[in-house]
Amino acid sequence: MIGIIGSGVMGMSHVATLTGLGGAKVVAVSDPDAVRVAQAAALAGGAKVLSPEALIADPSVDAVIVVSPDAKHAEQVLACLAAGKPVLCEKPLATSLADGAAILRADAGRGLVQVGYMRRFDPDYVDLKQHLQAGGAGDPLLIRMIHRNATAPAFMVGTQGITNSMVHEFDILRWLIGEEILRIRVQTPRAAKQGGLIDPLLAVAETASGILVEMENSGNVRYGYDIRTEILGSAGALMMAARPATRRQTAAGEVISHPADFTQRFADAYRIQFQDWIAALAAGKTKGAGSNAWDGYVAMAVAEAGVAALQSGDWADVSLPTQF
Amino acid sequence: MIGIIGSGVMGMSHVATLTGLGGAKVVAVSDPDAVRVAQAAALAGGAKVLSPEALIADPSVDAVIVVSPDAKHAEQVLACLAAGKPVLCEKPLATSLADGAAILRADAGRGLVQVGYMRRFDPDYVDLKQHLQAGGAGDPLLIRMIHRNATAPAFMVGTQGITNSMVHEFDILRWLIGEEILRIRVQTPRAAKQGGLIDPLLAVAETASGILVEMENSGNVRYGYDIRTEILGSAGALMMAARPATRRQTAAGEVISHPADFTQRFADAYRIQFQDWIAALAAGKTKGAGSNAWDGYVAMAVAEAGVAALQSGDWADVSLPTQF
Amino acid sequence: MIGIIGSGVMGMSHVATLTGLGGAKVVAVSDPDAVRVAQAAALAGGAKVLSPEALIADPSVDAVIVVSPDAKHAEQVLACLAAGKPVLCEKPLATSLADGAAILRADAGRGLVQVGYMRRFDPDYVDLKQHLQAGGAGDPLLIRMIHRNATAPAFMVGTQGITNSMVHEFDILRWLIGEEILRIRVQTPRAAKQGGLIDPLLAVAETASGILVEMENSGNVRYGYDIRTEILGSAGALMMAARPATRRQTAAGEVISHPADFTQRFADAYRIQFQDWIAALAAGKTKGAGSNAWDGYVAMAVAEAGVAALQSGDWADVSLPTQF
Amino acid sequence: MIGIIGSGVMGMSHVATLTGLGGAKVVAVSDPDAVRVAQAAALAGGAKVLSPEALIADPSVDAVIVVSPDAKHAEQVLACLAAGKPVLCEKPLATSLADGAAILRADAGRGLVQVGYMRRFDPDYVDLKQHLQAGGAGDPLLIRMIHRNATAPAFMVGTQGITNSMVHEFDILRWLIGEEILRIRVQTPRAAKQGGLIDPLLAVAETASGILVEMENSGNVRYGYDIRTEILGSAGALMMAARPATRRQTAAGEVISHPADFTQRFADAYRIQFQDWIAALAAGKTKGAGSNAWDGYVAMAVAEAGVAALQSGDWADVSLPTQF
Repeated sequence: MIGIIGSGVMGMSHVATLTGLGGAKVVAVSDPDAVRVAQAAALAGGAKVLSPEALIADPSVDAVIVVSPDAKHAEQVLACLAAGKPVLCEKPLATSLADGAAILRADAGRGLVQVGYMRRFDPDYVDLKQHLQAGGAGDPLLIRMIHRNATAPAFMVGTQGITNSMVHEFDILRWLIGEEILRIRVQTPRAAKQGGLIDPLLAVAETASGILVEMENSGNVRYGYDIRTEILGSAGALMMAARPATRRQTAAGEVISHPADFTQRFADAYRIQFQDWIAALAAGKTKGAGSNAWDGYVAMAVAEAGVAALQSGDWADVSLPTQF
Repeated sequence: MIGIIGSGVMGMSHVATLTGLGGAKVVAVSDPDAVRVAQAAALAGGAKVLSPEALIADPSVDAVIVVSPDAKHAEQVLACLAAGKPVLCEKPLATSLADGAAILRADAGRGLVQVGYMRRFDPDYVDLKQHLQAGGAGDPLLIRMIHRNATAPAFMVGTQGITNSMVHEFDILRWLIGEEILRIRVQTPRAAKQGGLIDPLLAVAETASGILVEMENSGNVRYGYDIRTEILGSAGALMMAARPATRRQTAAGEVISHPADFTQRFADAYRIQFQDWIAALAAGKTKGAGSNAWDGYVAMAVAEAGVAALQSGDWADVSLPTQF
Repeated sequence: MIGIIGSGVMGMSHVATLTGLGGAKVVAVSDPDAVRVAQAAALAGGAKVLSPEALIADPSVDAVIVVSPDAKHAEQVLACLAAGKPVLCEKPLATSLADGAAILRADAGRGLVQVGYMRRFDPDYVDLKQHLQAGGAGDPLLIRMIHRNATAPAFMVGTQGITNSMVHEFDILRWLIGEEILRIRVQTPRAAKQGGLIDPLLAVAETASGILVEMENSGNVRYGYDIRTEILGSAGALMMAARPATRRQTAAGEVISHPADFTQRFADAYRIQFQDWIAALAAGKTKGAGSNAWDGYVAMAVAEAGVAALQSGDWADVSLPTQF
Repeated sequence: MIGIIGSGVMGMSHVATLTGLGGAKVVAVSDPDAVRVAQAAALAGGAKVLSPEALIADPSVDAVIVVSPDAKHAEQVLACLAAGKPVLCEKPLATSLADGAAILRADAGRGLVQVGYMRRFDPDYVDLKQHLQAGGAGDPLLIRMIHRNATAPAFMVGTQGITNSMVHEFDILRWLIGEEILRIRVQTPRAAKQGGLIDPLLAVAETASGILVEMENSGNVRYGYDIRTEILGSAGALMMAARPATRRQTAAGEVISHPADFTQRFADAYRIQFQDWIAALAAGKTKGAGSNAWDGYVAMAVAEAGVAALQSGDWADVSLPTQF
């Protein structure tokens, strides 16, 4: 029995996805917006509407999904930990490394926290990783990750291209190659900057074994949502599958649509992530196969280095605590 | 509460899919193979094991999925109709037009029968149809449908490339363009014929408005499962999305995998078909948005014409009853 | 030293291509249109302007290219044969089989005639044939050839989609597989017919060994010139390379242009065809590696069968003389 | 009448290409290797064999192509300038900036020097530039250029991935966007380095208006020669056409070949470059539309900065003289 904190676009989407899955039921929802939370409750087939605190405490709620504004994540995750309940928190895990460290300490030895880096469940990334591990392309040398949004939402400002969007690349890169990012550089073309958002961004990261990783993060490419990952290895290269749609060939030429946004592109990933989490909890585990609290913390630490690098114009080292 | 008759590969796959979905539960299974049916019951989380008759009659079973051998379909669907229970039957609906007509009569005015032509729920076909209806490519003139299997299963013999496989094209074509197939020709290259199966097949069909449709059905292409549909219209063309996987670039060249088989290619379609059916029944309807008994009958009638055409080497008209 | 009869669009294009090549010079041109022929003469760097008869007879002309209207081909090719000069004639070789047979008789034992089926020199077709002969795809079973024009020129009427356009498929098919077409069926969708042209056309041909070949010929697809050939063999499949252009990704989606027309798509093929012909003549041969008079005759004979098939609605056998 | 200095693989290829073109003839060749130069002379249809000095001085030689080892370029280009003859020199123009400056001074006000950056004539790059200038993608912000070789030749050692290979990117980038590169960073993954060559390389350059350019140069990717250029603009993106070959679909999956090497990929570009140069000289110009001495010098200057950047691990500014 699941409680969901947050009834925004993504929270609502999560209610819909979970309602279509077996093995779990959304029994409680929470959101300060009375209209939206009522819609979420109805969509869940009659869930209770509670405050975050009451939802976490409610005895009918066995596990919690946190999809509230970023600034509330840490507090609510800590409350779940205090209540001893499994929690799946949307990224980022927190908005300060101090809060992230507090979660690490509270979760140490328990493993109740999962962070919603859904790409780890995307069939295309899974296929890419399997081919990388099969070894036909040799050892990875250069990796290229492109992350493009058609239009950045208005709440994205300043360096959020790094802290809110490129964090996906930080997490999935670590999962793909199984090693840490040591340092990073981030630049923006001089003429760029759309509204208050520093955009687009071009980053180069270096990993523990010396792999170089180019990452592009763009918020306003207009033509669609476009996610690409390519690995050049010592014996060949791997290129993740694209997700094309119907080709329309008219007097205008041949037109192919890209997915409109991440909800369309990663619908499978979200569904599989929830199925995995529900099955894991049903099997008595404390979390699913997704990112844990440490993964969530590391993505934040790399993002902090990225912001520093963008400001200094030089490399910034990623600082990871050996204890906390 | 659902009962499933048949615990073969596909029946087992349906149990697994349904168990992952919300809103329904598999409560009873049936199969003459004691080992397999026990596995199916366990996979469903403890379903009853019953004979087909007992399963259909069981008060805990609200709706039935028939995934038994083709020769049993008609009898079991008729038993469901006699019991007044919604039934989702795998294609083909029956193995004789007489049996198909008996189902049509029994289902007349009730609409309890759905046939498992899952492609109608495939996101790629849905996208293709939306673009066709949007009109940018004009009115359809020529349609090309390619249906290739890596390896035909051993049970496929004789003209089953038409009656068991090309029926998918017959159904999805009617759904795409909303009109009937009037006549059909089917040929096989002289040198072909793999084992007992007449394979590959090249068909040309003509529809009520004079659209020409080329259909290829191949059982043994080795490289994977490959489904393509292309529409040439009076103002352009539409080509359904392909489903590529990771590209591997090695000394052997650039290699792209195709899906292994239909279960991989149409996993989304099966899942969405079941979600739609369950939601429709929950909403008090007698079936989902998929093919009805009439659609199932028409696909059989076109297949019968196709078999006749293959044997005569000439056109065969599709004969559809105006009453039954 | 080359003479070119015909200064239409294609004749002019041939002058330009030849002027850019080494080893030969266009020394004479002929066309009833005084303005165009003067342009052609200037483009060739000061060629003589002559009547067709005078051009063929001119001692400075060593070899002739016939690119006049179809109805003049036979008469001019026969005049070249009478003069004992190599001739490269645009397709079709003649407009009646009787004229074609007259050319066969006049060229027998001499081999002075080449027909301008330029696709045999196209790098993509050459690559496809090499892969077919390499055998990885096994023996060919089904072949699919698509031939689409953006807009049919006004002079194309009636059955010229077969006699003037699909003849390219007849020739290149024979070259690919090295065997004859025995019979053919041709249909047009009922609603089609653009202006006076019967369009589009869907043909199915059967070859000597029983290979089935589907051929589409479309004159008005709007989106560009699109040539595709695909071979399904007993051990796999081959798909000829496409010729894409720059991808433009804008708010309208991702747009890819196709070549505008055959001159753009087959520019390489025309150039290589002429280089090969010039080099062959320089080496003392009577023609290059392209289609000979017999190939030109066979394409006409298949086209005649195709026209008969379109009119009868049934198969038409291809009738090839064993002597002439 | 053309003289060619150098009868290595590329010199021989140039003789063959020029012999197939009209409007010019290779009348003299030069190479220290007696066997190769005799082959080149024969291939040209009987050219004189001369020393470089004699070739440049020979009255029958109107223009010179320099395709000798890099270290000889400057001396031979300067000799051509002293003789007042147009010269097309393979890249790089020289092996030291001092030599490059000497050429700039000798060529000032004359424009006799063209550098063989053939990509400026490649139809795919031309198409890309036209789309960029058409403006649909807006102003360029991020550019990504990938340059991969299947196998690096043995003579490539040390930093030649920059000075001998990535110079192509430097030149074509300036041609595409019409502005200078201000500074550059170059890195290599730690584990890389194949034989004596530092490989692969990942560079980021910044242009005068602040465009960021990522450039990958790889010498040993095994799967083929792969050239890609992608431009992200303020209103969309452009992706240069790929050059695919026949798709082979067998039990091994779907395989696509890439061009084997640059001679195959850029055969059109070389041919068009020579046709343009010959036509320009015939029209009384001193060079064709390709890169001039200044372009050749700038590519060297950017390469020098690139080498410095690779060694320092930091940005290196490109230093361009305002007078020389």
